[in-house]
Amino acid sequence: MKHHYQAIRKLSEKICAPLQKEDYVVQPVPDVSPPKWHLAHTTWFWEEFVLSQHVKNYKRFHPRYAFLFNSYYDSVGERVLRLHRGNMSRPTVDEVWAYRAHVDEQMMAFLPSASETVIRLVELGLNHEQQHQELLYTDIKYILGHNPLFPPYLEDFKETLFIEQDHSYIHIPQGSYSIGHDTTCFSFDNEHARHDIQLPSFAIRKSLVTNGEYIEFIKDNGYKNPLLWYSDGWAWVNEFKIDSPLYWYPKEGNWYRYALSGFEKVNEAEPVTHISFYEAAAFAEWKGMRLPTEFEWEVASDQFQWGQRWEHTNSAYLPYPGYRKPAGAVGEYNGKFMINQMVLRGASVATPPEHSRKTYRNFFHPPLRWQFNGIRLCQK
Amino acid sequence: MKHHYQAIRKLSEKICAPLQKEDYVVQPVPDVSPPKWHLAHTTWFWEEFVLSQHVKNYKRFHPRYAFLFNSYYDSVGERVLRLHRGNMSRPTVDEVWAYRAHVDEQMMAFLPSASETVIRLVELGLNHEQQHQELLYTDIKYILGHNPLFPPYLEDFKETLFIEQDHSYIHIPQGSYSIGHDTTCFSFDNEHARHDIQLPSFAIRKSLVTNGEYIEFIKDNGYKNPLLWYSDGWAWVNEFKIDSPLYWYPKEGNWYRYALSGFEKVNEAEPVTHISFYEAAAFAEWKGMRLPTEFEWEVASDQFQWGQRWEHTNSAYLPYPGYRKPAGAVGEYNGKFMINQMVLRGASVATPPEHSRKTYRNFFHPPLRWQFNGIRLCQK
Amino acid sequence: MKHHYQAIRKLSEKICAPLQKEDYVVQPVPDVSPPKWHLAHTTWFWEEFVLSQHVKNYKRFHPRYAFLFNSYYDSVGERVLRLHRGNMSRPTVDEVWAYRAHVDEQMMAFLPSASETVIRLVELGLNHEQQHQELLYTDIKYILGHNPLFPPYLEDFKETLFIEQDHSYIHIPQGSYSIGHDTTCFSFDNEHARHDIQLPSFAIRKSLVTNGEYIEFIKDNGYKNPLLWYSDGWAWVNEFKIDSPLYWYPKEGNWYRYALSGFEKVNEAEPVTHISFYEAAAFAEWKGMRLPTEFEWEVASDQFQWGQRWEHTNSAYLPYPGYRKPAGAVGEYNGKFMINQMVLRGASVATPPEHSRKTYRNFFHPPLRWQFNGIRLCQK
Amino acid sequence: MKHHYQAIRKLSEKICAPLQKEDYVVQPVPDVSPPKWHLAHTTWFWEEFVLSQHVKNYKRFHPRYAFLFNSYYDSVGERVLRLHRGNMSRPTVDEVWAYRAHVDEQMMAFLPSASETVIRLVELGLNHEQQHQELLYTDIKYILGHNPLFPPYLEDFKETLFIEQDHSYIHIPQGSYSIGHDTTCFSFDNEHARHDIQLPSFAIRKSLVTNGEYIEFIKDNGYKNPLLWYSDGWAWVNEFKIDSPLYWYPKEGNWYRYALSGFEKVNEAEPVTHISFYEAAAFAEWKGMRLPTEFEWEVASDQFQWGQRWEHTNSAYLPYPGYRKPAGAVGEYNGKFMINQMVLRGASVATPPEHSRKTYRNFFHPPLRWQFNGIRLCQK
Repeated sequence: MKHHYQAIRKLSEKICAPLQKEDYVVQPVPDVSPPKWHLAHTTWFWEEFVLSQHVKNYKRFHPRYAFLFNSYYDSVGERVLRLHRGNMSRPTVDEVWAYRAHVDEQMMAFLPSASETVIRLVELGLNHEQQHQELLYTDIKYILGHNPLFPPYLEDFKETLFIEQDHSYIHIPQGSYSIGHDTTCFSFDNEHARHDIQLPSFAIRKSLVTNGEYIEFIKDNGYKNPLLWYSDGWAWVNEFKIDSPLYWYPKEGNWYRYALSGFEKVNEAEPVTHISFYEAAAFAEWKGMRLPTEFEWEVASDQFQWGQRWEHTNSAYLPYPGYRKPAGAVGEYNGKFMINQMVLRGASVATPPEHSRKTYRNFFHPPLRWQFNGIRLCQK
Repeated sequence: MKHHYQAIRKLSEKICAPLQKEDYVVQPVPDVSPPKWHLAHTTWFWEEFVLSQHVKNYKRFHPRYAFLFNSYYDSVGERVLRLHRGNMSRPTVDEVWAYRAHVDEQMMAFLPSASETVIRLVELGLNHEQQHQELLYTDIKYILGHNPLFPPYLEDFKETLFIEQDHSYIHIPQGSYSIGHDTTCFSFDNEHARHDIQLPSFAIRKSLVTNGEYIEFIKDNGYKNPLLWYSDGWAWVNEFKIDSPLYWYPKEGNWYRYALSGFEKVNEAEPVTHISFYEAAAFAEWKGMRLPTEFEWEVASDQFQWGQRWEHTNSAYLPYPGYRKPAGAVGEYNGKFMINQMVLRGASVATPPEHSRKTYRNFFHPPLRWQFNGIRLCQK
Repeated sequence: MKHHYQAIRKLSEKICAPLQKEDYVVQPVPDVSPPKWHLAHTTWFWEEFVLSQHVKNYKRFHPRYAFLFNSYYDSVGERVLRLHRGNMSRPTVDEVWAYRAHVDEQMMAFLPSASETVIRLVELGLNHEQQHQELLYTDIKYILGHNPLFPPYLEDFKETLFIEQDHSYIHIPQGSYSIGHDTTCFSFDNEHARHDIQLPSFAIRKSLVTNGEYIEFIKDNGYKNPLLWYSDGWAWVNEFKIDSPLYWYPKEGNWYRYALSGFEKVNEAEPVTHISFYEAAAFAEWKGMRLPTEFEWEVASDQFQWGQRWEHTNSAYLPYPGYRKPAGAVGEYNGKFMINQMVLRGASVATPPEHSRKTYRNFFHPPLRWQFNGIRLCQK
Repeated sequence: MKHHYQAIRKLSEKICAPLQKEDYVVQPVPDVSPPKWHLAHTTWFWEEFVLSQHVKNYKRFHPRYAFLFNSYYDSVGERVLRLHRGNMSRPTVDEVWAYRAHVDEQMMAFLPSASETVIRLVELGLNHEQQHQELLYTDIKYILGHNPLFPPYLEDFKETLFIEQDHSYIHIPQGSYSIGHDTTCFSFDNEHARHDIQLPSFAIRKSLVTNGEYIEFIKDNGYKNPLLWYSDGWAWVNEFKIDSPLYWYPKEGNWYRYALSGFEKVNEAEPVTHISFYEAAAFAEWKGMRLPTEFEWEVASDQFQWGQRWEHTNSAYLPYPGYRKPAGAVGEYNGKFMINQMVLRGASVATPPEHSRKTYRNFFHPPLRWQFNGIRLCQK
């Protein structure tokens, strides 16, 4: 467990290595947090839920950090409004590194004696940190990708790992299928309980929608045709004047985009990304197709390559039958978000290793675009 | 069909009979439309989809009304922004009555010769008008209930038809159940296709939550405890400083409310109403219970009295398997709203006669409160 | 005084005679009040400041009207937020007429016995009502002019009374001049005290800027050139996408406008109107000219025809030396507005007879456009 | 001139010396700019208006910096929206220092050969940089003073240099007085032309209003009494729930404040600061006094100590008679702000040495509070 803890903590630091100090500080929009904040908040988790609860006479690194770096746990005290994170120049990056070092040292001393119950909490904390590692990538991309100088994050970063050639459909017969995690290893509460559902037969595409296909949608005035859109999506397109994926820019008749490797021409063979649920649904409608439900996705997922993009589904994020929130502050982890959000399945290029499985339920509000998401189609 | 058409059209007029001319005009918030607008919009439906399509050389009553009274059908041309309806003093109420008379006369002449296809469209139009009849009640209540003089709508209007005494639970066994409408008579596209689902066993309460129970929740600081609320609900409570149902006012230690019969003391035995999905869910959490899914509701509904309040469910408004939008403008009727809304089941005191059935799926955004809705609980 | 009272009260009613009942109710933007509200608010003035103060045992027409129709007198109790006036369908128009009749009857009985002090208050009340008569015209224009049907108010209403032919300049020598009212007859506190000021020599145009001149400004991209605008004006133009005077619409290569007589082609010889201070200042800059100060205007005003448009000046609305607010609620009449507003001088086609004089100081916030205002130029 | 240039440029750097790198980046509200931005923008001035215009073949340090660091000169190209400055993590602080070094080196080489015309432009640039030095202090205070940790800027920084003991009034006789700068040395265009005005007699206080006096105003419910406030001020107090000066916090029955030296108890003898024009005017009204006009201030200023606080006046920021904007981009310097702002006179503890004179006209919008401003009273 000590090794596992160390490996995951180190990865957070490695992700930030290419940054300048100034990049750690800013918060261009409320959904994007400063990298400095992610590093401190994941550290606060250990101090709040493990060290201060289970280490006798544990002395917190700083008395105000619990207030500064609590993200949303309403049961453990007041917190800094998400909107204001980007106004906090202090603590400095160096102070945050010192905070991490302090907490890691304490954790390494504590872990060998941790009880089974605490080990399960540590597992949760490590998964929590992995979730923030994905956010580090996407938030860094937002910060650098909205800077007028378009500085690259890492020039050899690959946002697409492989190109899919086979665009055919997999046919799944009607039947009863088991959904959810069997709890033999770590999983989140929202993946439970495993249960059976009835599915009609359906056909799902092997490959994700490509940039080339998406450009066809744009060319065919997909963003101008109200009949393709949900009512709320159409209002969103018009209010924010959306006409292409996030990070895309037209230039001399071609589409360019900001990627973590820098500003570059859009490659038509790669899977499209940074599109909202609304755009994914409108694209599917335009194509005469539909998005899969999260259950269809889970049932078919052994038969296609996934892991490059979080895949929009047409399922609302709701509890499975018999779902119960864990007791205590940790109970706020997932349950309180089960409204107004849609499920995304799979994983992306920014998902840390060993943090994906076919039962994993990611979720975002329908207009959000800054994650590495994508589109998989089902036949109507 | 002529008789049925006439009966439904007359009811719209009867609902408005107690109004003063000035009441027909105002729109206090975007979700509430002026009564005048409802009367004209339901009339526009006949002109747009029936008369102008199927009556040779039909001359529209006024060339600009199609623009003024289109509510949301993006495929039939530009429309007046919902927000601006309350700024339109013209056409006057008398002109709208003349518009209705003109269209009714034309419809009565046309109906005897209508084809089977058109008859189905007329059925849709009548159901459409019935939906606006319910909105007439709730919008009139909002207009009069937000006037500092609190004028009654009708002094003998009853918002509660019967008091429920039996608060016990019905137990439904685990099993496979059929959901949706069998299409033997009129139903909306969103009730199709009828399909089987698996349900675990559950227990659902016979009665709705009462005002008295809800007052206990308020007294126990239910509106102040973040752990009871969804994250979005907690943000909503704080942004709008919500602390009681819509239309409730504290006065000398008691709760009063505006009802269609006027300003009066809250009766603790009546079922609570005018609470958002967020409030319904927080109340259920506080009670150690949960809201039913729309499927549980439909399966159990033969065993309890319903029809006084639209009942919040924990189901997102999504298409049933195999759902397909009808072709043409009528296809915009339901499908485009299948995002960000929650399903309510049952019917209310404001629902017109013969416009309710156990498969009916009503839907609203989670914060909305101006409908006659209520809370039914399931055991966790 | 009884005759004078009656004549002014009747004029308010005459202005409203062409309206439909529905026109009395709406409030399309916060600055525009419903005509019904003007009729009630001017009546409330008599009840609040005269009858309830000076008539023994006076019984108010309705106990809640003081709350509903107080516009801004913070010292006499709570008031209905200006924003919400358009949501009040009650009291009805007929009830407001009854309120006026009741108060007028009481006033007619009371006036013969009124003391000198009260007579001065009545004079203020009559001037107050005249100010609302001008607002009745401009608010009615806004309500009908923002209705998609563009209903005329009165087909023979003339917004321009005479065409100015002489565009030459009047030269005023440097010197000391007296400014302000000599208080020999009624005037507002903001016109006092009369005092001397030093003015350098200046040249002011005899005529107002015409529609034709303003069209040149538009054609020369006046709305697109930031160097012509104040910084706040440029932000306003861009935020609200302003590109022409209020009520102007381009149609087939020509400019049309809504006037109280209906929708019509812009007449190039008439004086331009419905332009904000920002537009007036940008136009002057474009022309190589400047706006007069309110003092220059007052000094020169005997030498040009005025009274068709309120004329923008480059003077901020500030107290004259030695200005003191009157005691009591009436003290709120003018002084509290002496910030963030610019002075307009003269009078307009909507100003009631005998309600104008060369010392009169009108004032509005710089972006506002719904008054009948205009532009007079000075040489730089 | 080289020495003068160097001295002023160095002061900007000295002001920033106590900062952490992270402090240079953030922008908590639109009016407050990141210190990094001030350092770059003042450097851009030299590159844009001097080096690129007057040095043959001058090569800009970076092709995009003109876009990034133009604050408001609309005539020299597009600019980064003021709102977004705080989202720009790049260029880094080190890159900005390199930019400054590059431009300074070029300027030092160029200055000896500069023509008289260019020298006047350099003088303007140095005064421009001094204005930003004052903003550096006030913006740094805002950034650190809104951080929950309240880090001091410099523990020995003195916001008050001397305590005033004499609160008596100076009496100035009625008469004609000269106002404005005589242009014998550097001054801004808005101080011209010098001209005579008539003033009635008046009495102005020798000392500024103290914290102790202001606490009396708070205790007497000054923030709750609408009759003390301008109408726009009252709306502002209520919208933003203002109840004390900026940076003040109640704690255990006493008032504390954040100062550049850290969090400390309010000293009642010091002059109050960080109050808006609205608060200054309401305080004066409460005291039965009034604010001076900028002309009264200028006439009396030789007879009282000033320089600790920018002093609110009751004069709107308007051009003096005969004012003309300079030609070219420099013409945007002052003239475009002559609307919606009030004049402040004097200087503050944050004003650089030799950047103050009695004719200097500072100006801000009425609600702004983050400058070191204060209140001087006149008798009514």
